[in-house]
Amino acid sequence: MSEAPHLTFDLDKPDMSKGHLVVPKGADCEALSLPVFSLNKGEGPQLLITGGCHGDELEGPIVARRLFEWLPEAQTCGRIIVVPVLNPPAVLACTRNTPIDGLNLNRVFPGRSDGSVTERIADAVSRTLLPLADTVFDLHSFGLTWDFPPSSTTHPIADPILMAKTLQMAEAFKLPMTLVWEHPGSPGMFDTLAQNQGKVFICAEFGGGTVNFDAIAIYEAGLRNALIALGLVEGKPDYPTFRQQKVTQTLETRRSSDELKSPGRGIFEPRCSVLDEVKQGDIIGAVYPMDSFAADAIYIRAPQTSIVYAIRSGAYVDVEEGVALVARTLNH
Amino acid sequence: MSEAPHLTFDLDKPDMSKGHLVVPKGADCEALSLPVFSLNKGEGPQLLITGGCHGDELEGPIVARRLFEWLPEAQTCGRIIVVPVLNPPAVLACTRNTPIDGLNLNRVFPGRSDGSVTERIADAVSRTLLPLADTVFDLHSFGLTWDFPPSSTTHPIADPILMAKTLQMAEAFKLPMTLVWEHPGSPGMFDTLAQNQGKVFICAEFGGGTVNFDAIAIYEAGLRNALIALGLVEGKPDYPTFRQQKVTQTLETRRSSDELKSPGRGIFEPRCSVLDEVKQGDIIGAVYPMDSFAADAIYIRAPQTSIVYAIRSGAYVDVEEGVALVARTLNH
Repeated sequence: MSEAPHLTFDLDKPDMSKGHLVVPKGADCEALSLPVFSLNKGEGPQLLITGGCHGDELEGPIVARRLFEWLPEAQTCGRIIVVPVLNPPAVLACTRNTPIDGLNLNRVFPGRSDGSVTERIADAVSRTLLPLADTVFDLHSFGLTWDFPPSSTTHPIADPILMAKTLQMAEAFKLPMTLVWEHPGSPGMFDTLAQNQGKVFICAEFGGGTVNFDAIAIYEAGLRNALIALGLVEGKPDYPTFRQQKVTQTLETRRSSDELKSPGRGIFEPRCSVLDEVKQGDIIGAVYPMDSFAADAIYIRAPQTSIVYAIRSGAYVDVEEGVALVARTLNH
Repeated sequence: MSEAPHLTFDLDKPDMSKGHLVVPKGADCEALSLPVFSLNKGEGPQLLITGGCHGDELEGPIVARRLFEWLPEAQTCGRIIVVPVLNPPAVLACTRNTPIDGLNLNRVFPGRSDGSVTERIADAVSRTLLPLADTVFDLHSFGLTWDFPPSSTTHPIADPILMAKTLQMAEAFKLPMTLVWEHPGSPGMFDTLAQNQGKVFICAEFGGGTVNFDAIAIYEAGLRNALIALGLVEGKPDYPTFRQQKVTQTLETRRSSDELKSPGRGIFEPRCSVLDEVKQGDIIGAVYPMDSFAADAIYIRAPQTSIVYAIRSGAYVDVEEGVALVARTLNH
């Protein structure tokens, strides 16, 4: 029988403690040791911060790792557990899914102790760390071939009280965008598992494309705002500057009708920028077939008046592949 | 015996003509048909524009394909041959090298008619299109995991007259940056082949990371400026706006001493932006080992007063992997 997932250190010690979360070995690979640190300042909110669920989204691991440098001074109460990289094999390979078993870690929660490596990571996190938290910040990005504004996101939640608490927490990041994202129930998401246990779960989508200096400053400011709102850190929250403005907006999008797909194969050219307002029929992008100049460019048009939330960048797209996501102001 | 590479249409016809460059089949794959168009307006400069040499650099193919829409009206003399995608298998796979044989197209020129597919593409271009041009614009980018300003680049050329002509042409793009890039002679580059034949060859490095609307506008403006400078298109050249400024600068860099490498493995965090001026010892970035919090972050520092030209974004880097490129003003 394989060993159980476990922590190599005592999280209940006061102040800083650090060590590893051990994900037991299986048939497909050896045991993994995920670096974890905990800052325990007594009574107060119990927060879990995770990054690196997908290996091609590196803002989260960077911002989470940087907490190690400033949080010990800043935190005044409660406990914060930080796991900068949930999925080391995916980060090493710079791939969304785990290269060993091809699985998406954010689709296999709560995981299986006798499953493949991605399922064993999910099982270790679900059993060892999740029970210790009342709030979870899972730090994602939108991947390399998309443009996406820094956002805190959530999905619609059946329980209206938890929905209100979650939306309030998402807005407390004061990132340029807060997004309520309705999409067809994907089983195995970390979000759903935590929410079903009554926890506040925020998925920060820290942009897409390039990880740059300015973007990291925005993400760190957003995370600090959220920690202040939780009462874990003292200070005055402030809107980070995005495109020379201190803006904030809460939007909603439905994956079923607001995700625009390419009707053909080709190279996608964005014809607008994220957060542009578009009217019905406006051109959002063009798809250039690569086979011949005889085939005209295919134009992707806005289905209705909306805001361009995400747009594909630098990609050869297939038929029915998503190229943009539009959204509307949330009335709440 | 396999057929020879050939064009399916007559390039000498006046005005617009279009068709394909056929790269013969070989042991590893069927024949490829690369879409090509030509605009023949009589006497004047003979220009070849190519994109998509590397499959993860899609600005070039987009800007080259867009020429099809505005060049017929704009061009007044000479001939322009456009191949938006030199390497279709690499673009389909979104990879730098050709997935079929693993080769870098820009390291196998002049190619081989009996070689693998990448060598056959190089052979077809070298034999069929290159002899028809006195000037070549090869439209590259810097790849998905780098931040890089829109630039026209060249390498030092032994012949001082060709060097001066080439630098003048590079600066005529009026892109934010012109770069003279000295690096250890890499055999098989398209640049070197063309320059050895006395041609002016400009490698436009259209940035890195995200292909977005604003960036494409800059690249297209740069290409239009170059066409005006060549006398192929009428109009007034103008500096495109980059980061709210109309800037231009010519810099030089040496790959041997100006490429900063990571001394360790980890996630790279950029601590500055491209075009920032740094002094000796300034921190350019940090590498976070992923194994443990016991290992400190490794800081990458500027070796001397210089300008950060390119910086890695969103990557797990290995020992000795490049993370930044610095440069200095070229005195000329």
